[in-house]
Amino acid sequence: MPAYSTNMRYKFPILALVLEIITIILFGVFADYDDGKDMRVVWISRNKKNRLFQDVHVMIFIGFGFLMTFLKRYGFSSVGINLLLAAFGLQWGLLTQGFWHMDDGKIKISIFKIINADFSTATVLISFGAVLGKTSPVQLLIMTILEITIFSINEHLVATVLKANDVGASMIIHAYGAYFGLAVARVLYRPSLRNGHENDGSVYHSDLFAMIGTVFLWMFWPSFNSAIADPGVTQLTAVINTYLSLAACVLSAYAISSLVEHKGKLDMVHIQNATLAGGVAVGTCADMNIGPFGAMLIGLVAGIISTLGFKFLSPILAANLGIQDTCGVHNLHGMPGVLGGLAGIVAVALGKKEGGNAAMQAAALASSIGFALVGGVVTGFIMKLPFWGQPPDKNCFDDSIYWEVPEEEDEHEESLAHADHSKNKAEA
Amino acid sequence: MPAYSTNMRYKFPILALVLEIITIILFGVFADYDDGKDMRVVWISRNKKNRLFQDVHVMIFIGFGFLMTFLKRYGFSSVGINLLLAAFGLQWGLLTQGFWHMDDGKIKISIFKIINADFSTATVLISFGAVLGKTSPVQLLIMTILEITIFSINEHLVATVLKANDVGASMIIHAYGAYFGLAVARVLYRPSLRNGHENDGSVYHSDLFAMIGTVFLWMFWPSFNSAIADPGVTQLTAVINTYLSLAACVLSAYAISSLVEHKGKLDMVHIQNATLAGGVAVGTCADMNIGPFGAMLIGLVAGIISTLGFKFLSPILAANLGIQDTCGVHNLHGMPGVLGGLAGIVAVALGKKEGGNAAMQAAALASSIGFALVGGVVTGFIMKLPFWGQPPDKNCFDDSIYWEVPEEEDEHEESLAHADHSKNKAEA
Amino acid sequence: MPAYSTNMRYKFPILALVLEIITIILFGVFADYDDGKDMRVVWISRNKKNRLFQDVHVMIFIGFGFLMTFLKRYGFSSVGINLLLAAFGLQWGLLTQGFWHMDDGKIKISIFKIINADFSTATVLISFGAVLGKTSPVQLLIMTILEITIFSINEHLVATVLKANDVGASMIIHAYGAYFGLAVARVLYRPSLRNGHENDGSVYHSDLFAMIGTVFLWMFWPSFNSAIADPGVTQLTAVINTYLSLAACVLSAYAISSLVEHKGKLDMVHIQNATLAGGVAVGTCADMNIGPFGAMLIGLVAGIISTLGFKFLSPILAANLGIQDTCGVHNLHGMPGVLGGLAGIVAVALGKKEGGNAAMQAAALASSIGFALVGGVVTGFIMKLPFWGQPPDKNCFDDSIYWEVPEEEDEHEESLAHADHSKNKAEA
Repeated sequence: MPAYSTNMRYKFPILALVLEIITIILFGVFADYDDGKDMRVVWISRNKKNRLFQDVHVMIFIGFGFLMTFLKRYGFSSVGINLLLAAFGLQWGLLTQGFWHMDDGKIKISIFKIINADFSTATVLISFGAVLGKTSPVQLLIMTILEITIFSINEHLVATVLKANDVGASMIIHAYGAYFGLAVARVLYRPSLRNGHENDGSVYHSDLFAMIGTVFLWMFWPSFNSAIADPGVTQLTAVINTYLSLAACVLSAYAISSLVEHKGKLDMVHIQNATLAGGVAVGTCADMNIGPFGAMLIGLVAGIISTLGFKFLSPILAANLGIQDTCGVHNLHGMPGVLGGLAGIVAVALGKKEGGNAAMQAAALASSIGFALVGGVVTGFIMKLPFWGQPPDKNCFDDSIYWEVPEEEDEHEESLAHADHSKNKAEA
Repeated sequence: MPAYSTNMRYKFPILALVLEIITIILFGVFADYDDGKDMRVVWISRNKKNRLFQDVHVMIFIGFGFLMTFLKRYGFSSVGINLLLAAFGLQWGLLTQGFWHMDDGKIKISIFKIINADFSTATVLISFGAVLGKTSPVQLLIMTILEITIFSINEHLVATVLKANDVGASMIIHAYGAYFGLAVARVLYRPSLRNGHENDGSVYHSDLFAMIGTVFLWMFWPSFNSAIADPGVTQLTAVINTYLSLAACVLSAYAISSLVEHKGKLDMVHIQNATLAGGVAVGTCADMNIGPFGAMLIGLVAGIISTLGFKFLSPILAANLGIQDTCGVHNLHGMPGVLGGLAGIVAVALGKKEGGNAAMQAAALASSIGFALVGGVVTGFIMKLPFWGQPPDKNCFDDSIYWEVPEEEDEHEESLAHADHSKNKAEA
Repeated sequence: MPAYSTNMRYKFPILALVLEIITIILFGVFADYDDGKDMRVVWISRNKKNRLFQDVHVMIFIGFGFLMTFLKRYGFSSVGINLLLAAFGLQWGLLTQGFWHMDDGKIKISIFKIINADFSTATVLISFGAVLGKTSPVQLLIMTILEITIFSINEHLVATVLKANDVGASMIIHAYGAYFGLAVARVLYRPSLRNGHENDGSVYHSDLFAMIGTVFLWMFWPSFNSAIADPGVTQLTAVINTYLSLAACVLSAYAISSLVEHKGKLDMVHIQNATLAGGVAVGTCADMNIGPFGAMLIGLVAGIISTLGFKFLSPILAANLGIQDTCGVHNLHGMPGVLGGLAGIVAVALGKKEGGNAAMQAAALASSIGFALVGGVVTGFIMKLPFWGQPPDKNCFDDSIYWEVPEEEDEHEESLAHADHSKNKAEA
């Protein structure tokens, strides 16, 4: 046990309740229902948007939550803390995004704003993947507040000031979330995990749970990338581009996984993650006239670089730069997000988007990465303060430090090693 | 073995087939497609309602089904019997609800009526949670018939006679289903289970399966509470109120779980259930002008009382009143449902709903609880008749009494206790 | 080890990448976005169809994928190879179906075409069920190309030449996919598996994963059967008929399962599959005026024959005809598909569909089965060529031949039999 305790009995409940009460008061002062004055927003709210909201919701809560259940003993935290952070994040995101668009001094809540609030939580859930297993719920609530606040600033800058295109948010969500998380992970570097950790791996069933997350993310990505597109042909284009990019990405991810693995076998880590890189990478261009061919090419490349990243780059980042990226978010969100931003610059330069400006696209990409790195480093140092209940190295990747886990009555039983543990599990 | 056998070889197939054939004949005589004469129903059928129907469908079949898979050896029954009861219940509900709204002597089936039929099954699935593991499929089919029939009477009384508001059905579904189930559970009280049962608990993987149910219920609750709301601003209000109530509820459920548990750890039972109490409790008021602040306050309180109920009240009910509530439906549906009814009375009294009448709201709440308790007691005594194949105490919470369970060729092998069982499972 | 290796290191990646690159080039030459000239398609694209597309998507990727995870050691392949085949199949289906409907020399991609592409992959996933566990990914990619190409020919013949009705595709998808797969399975007959295989069975958790597939298929089947129906009353009819057929089917499947099983217990194989037969069987008639009574009768019969098929017919087909049907697709898709085709003939003959022609319906059924059997035999012989990496008998139904499976560092460890394997799993 370190000098500072991991016992959360007071610090977690107090933080969670205080945050929620402050949030409710802020909603009492600033929030109201959308009143229908903005007819366009109301119209789309009542129709299609409502459905896209539910699809995005599934991606946030089932998709991200179950994708991270691949760890053998960290499933409760993956899906449970995912729910906690998303539930708090969407409230906080409604506020921080809403402050930029007040109407009569009020944030008027519409389905459109709800979708954007769900989006803002995605950045936190991506960063959560980088630090998964190595942080306490208290630290993660603090990360949520800071990351969403900074996201809202960058999003405002990119969308309103630079007027850059990023309909599927390759830059402002995926690249931002990934590099923010990697910066935090770097600050929280744990030397003793350099040689791995016995719980930092999957078992057969945990890999199947993770595939629930993968497949729901994969299926609903067309809704994610088209949710805030202009209705009509533009939105249809975003659906088709995303659908085709993802399909092409699957083939390249499977091919490269088999090519680089032992005896040509497929690796579940690649399949769970790299098959989604096409959705990330086509995000910025999703509503542009890049053609089915262009979308598929982006997906093909994304699947390749993502899989290669898992195989070759992640070990280098961990060993040489001290970036321990539990879920490999650099490969799923980081590089494909940057690829998406670059593709957007090229597409706009080639005139694939009316009114687009390649310099502004480049500025948006730089801004997103800049805010992510600076914000992540600052946030990381705040999270590193010793009283937030960070788990000791030996308890990383283990639910039982923050959860009542079935079949383990008492903490000191844990030291009764594998023989006993295996018995408990087997009886189950 | 008791004098009456648990072998279902004839009684279950005959009951199921006879019920289905009677139902088909009744549909042959009374049911027809909606013919479009009621333009409003057709219009909403063709548009938005169709989607809300699918969301409600997911809550009924995945949500309720998987939520109950938390028991270590009762997953087949949880998701399988859930499917059986819901599939029969929706047919029966179409009939019993339809008889109140005949047109030319026919029940005209529309998406609107299908949603209401799905709703009627929810009452049964809630009650199923109270008696989970302690009843046979035959008993549960009988409960389904009686509970839905009585529901349809109470629903007609509340909606048409009292003209009370209950758009998200806090009273007529959640409180009704919970207290009906608790009354049945009281009648079926098993003294020998007072000290628990070795199978009445979860294992690591079963808790993750249950989270699939939790998260799908959580995500689609806004659709549940808005499915029968008037289209437009009212429906949008129901979505926003439910979304915010649920989000606030998550924070309070997590906070209180950590506060009351051993060393500040989170308890999966609370997370799986109490995070949903905000959806239940905001149901009656969902389409009222209670403001985002009001919705969040309801959610906050619901999360607190639900978690405290699991920790402190359920053991008291079991020990002192003989109410053995397997899933704790009193904490998820009972108390939050009553809270929702009370919030509705207050909101209507404060003028938050045009045309509302607080006295009628109170009468609706009393009626729902009254029908539930009386109906549940009567149903319980019918279910207690000795020939329905109720499981003996030692086989409670165990799928193998009604299901072929893999790796167990023969009944008497079961007596070859843990050593052997652990081997089978481990080989799996 | 056979003379031909199961090592996929080069053959799989090369095949997958070459196929994808050819596909992208074909899309570059032939594909474009739908341009809105066909207003009807665009209108429905923008509205309802978009949602139905997502429901069908869920059935293809979650439904089929998880339904096949029932095998104890074949979950990675079930859900993973399902994703691979569907992702490639939908691209290929867009091309092969699109070639019949070119506009200015281009395939104009709309949501309507995307739904049809998803549909085309369903045939492959059904056939995959017949050969599950006994084929390599390379063989399956080849099957995908051939099966979808032949499907597109038969579909064009049935829909455009014969002008037969098959809105829910009982004939062109379910019967076709099943008999195609059975023909392939017959050609790939493995005598040594006549007495079963130790991995050809389920364990407790794998049966629960499979229920995720079952329930999602069940819930969204109304969308499948109505996705390409004419909007309005016709589409509503398709939803209602499918909903009622499925509900009736559940009761008969449960009843017959209990009736034919040991001590009246329910069998998970029946519940996972036969409960869906009502959706298959009502497909052809789904948009016809058969009445709720007619739909329920079809469902009732489908549930009975499907369950009886699993119990009595499948063992005969395996023992006497050499048809080893891993998932029992003959019982879920084959017989119910034929039942659906026959019901369609009768319904059209009785005048339940305006403009229908019973002879054309019969021709469509014959055509679908004929193309399936001939196509399946030819495809089977191509798949049987020795260099595609078909697994040896002893490694059938085992993920570890094509996947890195956790807790097994090295191939030769596999020979350290159960004692060791059990330990690994238990530690998990």
